[in-house]
Amino acid sequence: MRQLTKNLLPLFLISFLLFSGCHPQGSGLRGGKDPLPSWNDTPRKEAIVDFVTTVTNKDSTDYLPPEARVAVFDNDGTLWSEKPLYFQLYFIFDRIRALAPQHPEWKKDKLIKAVLAGDIEKIRKYGGEGIARLMAITQAGMTTEVFDGIVRKWIRTARHPVSGKLYTQMTYQPMLELIRFLQENGFKVYIVSGGGQDFIRPWTLETYHIPREQVIGSRQKLEYRKLENGKPVLERLPDMDFVNNGAGKAIAIHQYIGRRPVIAFGNSDDDLQMLEWTRWGKERSLVGFVHHNDAKREWAYDRHSKIGRLDKGLDMAHSRGWLVIDMKKDWKVIHPSGLKNN
Amino acid sequence: MRQLTKNLLPLFLISFLLFSGCHPQGSGLRGGKDPLPSWNDTPRKEAIVDFVTTVTNKDSTDYLPPEARVAVFDNDGTLWSEKPLYFQLYFIFDRIRALAPQHPEWKKDKLIKAVLAGDIEKIRKYGGEGIARLMAITQAGMTTEVFDGIVRKWIRTARHPVSGKLYTQMTYQPMLELIRFLQENGFKVYIVSGGGQDFIRPWTLETYHIPREQVIGSRQKLEYRKLENGKPVLERLPDMDFVNNGAGKAIAIHQYIGRRPVIAFGNSDDDLQMLEWTRWGKERSLVGFVHHNDAKREWAYDRHSKIGRLDKGLDMAHSRGWLVIDMKKDWKVIHPSGLKNN
Repeated sequence: MRQLTKNLLPLFLISFLLFSGCHPQGSGLRGGKDPLPSWNDTPRKEAIVDFVTTVTNKDSTDYLPPEARVAVFDNDGTLWSEKPLYFQLYFIFDRIRALAPQHPEWKKDKLIKAVLAGDIEKIRKYGGEGIARLMAITQAGMTTEVFDGIVRKWIRTARHPVSGKLYTQMTYQPMLELIRFLQENGFKVYIVSGGGQDFIRPWTLETYHIPREQVIGSRQKLEYRKLENGKPVLERLPDMDFVNNGAGKAIAIHQYIGRRPVIAFGNSDDDLQMLEWTRWGKERSLVGFVHHNDAKREWAYDRHSKIGRLDKGLDMAHSRGWLVIDMKKDWKVIHPSGLKNN
Repeated sequence: MRQLTKNLLPLFLISFLLFSGCHPQGSGLRGGKDPLPSWNDTPRKEAIVDFVTTVTNKDSTDYLPPEARVAVFDNDGTLWSEKPLYFQLYFIFDRIRALAPQHPEWKKDKLIKAVLAGDIEKIRKYGGEGIARLMAITQAGMTTEVFDGIVRKWIRTARHPVSGKLYTQMTYQPMLELIRFLQENGFKVYIVSGGGQDFIRPWTLETYHIPREQVIGSRQKLEYRKLENGKPVLERLPDMDFVNNGAGKAIAIHQYIGRRPVIAFGNSDDDLQMLEWTRWGKERSLVGFVHHNDAKREWAYDRHSKIGRLDKGLDMAHSRGWLVIDMKKDWKVIHPSGLKNN
C-alpha cells in the first residue's frame, strides 16, 4: 500500500503540472482563487466572471473558440486616469519644456509661453489647432525609433502634476486584473485608444501585459526614407494619418483585427461606436462602461465633462443594458497598491 | 540503488513533459524530424534552419526573446502562384460573370465585355483605371461581412483557369512548412501583401495557419453606418484607403506590428522596402527572395516581367546577400501533394 502511494504520487504531480502550468486557456476560477481580488462582490463582478466562465465552457451553447475571444479596451479613463488632462498632453508639455532651452525664438510664441507657464486655460483657447501645433513640434520631425526612445524615457521618470505619481501608477488595478483574467482564459486583449499609437506602445507590455501589436491608436503620417548609410527609417510627419475615435474605432478594429470583439470596455462618447460594434456581433458579448464617480479616490465627472466627453454615453449605457462600472462601489482599490491614495 | 532509480524516474518524466510538450517555442529540430521535408538539402535550407536554431538558442549571442520573433511574408508569388494574373483578378472577373445576368446595361460596356470574353489583353489596355472600376463594381457597395462571405464561397469553389486547381491548392508546400516551422519556434508570422486585406483574411487560418489579424494588405475605404434595426455595419466604399506596396509595406508593418521583423520573404520589386526594413534591424535577420525559375512545375519569370515586377529585385537580392530561393533546385515539390503536377 505504501509502495502504491509512492508510485501514484508522481503521476498526480505530473497531472497537476500538466493541467496547471501548461494550459493558458484554463479558467482562472478552477483553482478556487479569486481572479479579480480588487473588485467588490457586486453584480458587475458577477456578470464579468459569469461571462468568462460561460464562453470558455465547451458544454455551453455560448462557447467561444479561442480565435473568437477578442477583447478591446479604451485607454484614457478606462485603463488609466485622464484628469485633469489626457496624459499624452502632459508628455507634450514636458517635451516643450525640455526643448525650450534650444529654442530662444519660442520666447515670442504666446502658445508656447502658456505651456511653459502651465496655463491650461490659455492653452485651451488655442483649441485643436494649438494642440496640433504642439504635437507637430514635439511628436514629428524624428524617426519612429527616436520617438519610441523619448517616450520610454518619459514614462519611466515623468510625474503626474496632481498626484505626483508615475503615470503608469495611475492605471486601474481592477482593470489590470481583468486583463490578466481574460488572457488566462485565452482572450486576445487589445487597447483601442484615441491616444497616439506610438505614444502608447512603448510601455504597454510592461504596464498592461499587452504587446505592442495589440495597441491600436491614432497615427501620424509616416515617410519612408534612407539615412546616408543606406539604413531605411520612418520619419514622423506633422499631419495626422488616422484619428482613432468614434466611428474610427470600429473601422480600426476591422482593419487591424478583422473580426468583431466579444468584450469591449470604454468610458466616453468616443467609445460608443466601438461598444455598439461589439454588442451587435453574432456571439454573446460583454460591454462595459466605466463611470467615474469617485471624487475621493480618483475623479468624479459626468455628462458635459470637458475631458472624457460623455454627453450621450452614460444614458446610452443604461438604456442598452451595458455593464456600468461604478468605481465607488465596484472597485476596492483604484490604482496599484503600495501607492498613496490606496 | 533500485529504489533511487525508481524515485528519480518520475522526476525525469516530469522534466521531460515540462520541457517537451509544454514549450511551443522549442526547436522543431530537437526531435530529429526534418522540419522542412519539401526542401532539398541546399545551402538555402541550411541557412534557414541554422538561423532558426541559432536565434532560439538561449546560449547564442543572437538569441531573440519571443516578442522579437516576427516574420513577414509577401503573398502573391511568395506563398502562392501569381500567374498568368494575380489571383484576386480572377476573383474580380468571376464576380463580374456572376453579376452580369442582373445587369443588362453591361452589354454596352466594352471593359466588361472584355472581362466576359476573358480577353486579358483588351482588359490590360484599360490599365489601372479599368481595374479600379472593376474593383469598385465587385468589391464595394456591400458590408464587410457580406464581402467576407462572398470571398469564402469563392475560395472554396473557384478554379484556376490554367491548372484547374482550387486556388488554395496553388500555395507553395515548402512555404507552408516554413510557416509551421517558424510558428513551432515561437515566431509570429504575418502576411504583408499588396492584395486586398479583406480578400485574403477569410481563408488564411485554414490555408496557411495564419489568423486574420496577422494579415496586412491593401484596404478600401470604409464607412460606419447603421441598418434599420440599429445594427452597425461597415460599408465598403469604392476608393482605396491604403495601397500596401513598396514603402507602404514598411509603413504598414510599423503601424500594425510596431517593430522591425527579423525574417522577411518576398519575390518582387514591391517587396524591396519591406526586405530592407527587416535587414536593417538591430537583430540578426533572415531575408529571402523567391526566384521563379521553374517553367515545368510552375512558371519562370525574371527581370521585366509584367506581373510580379522584379526589374531591380533580383539584382538587389544577389548584391545584398539575401537568400535567393531557387525554386527549381531548392523545392522538392511546389504545390501541396496529392495534386496534379506534383
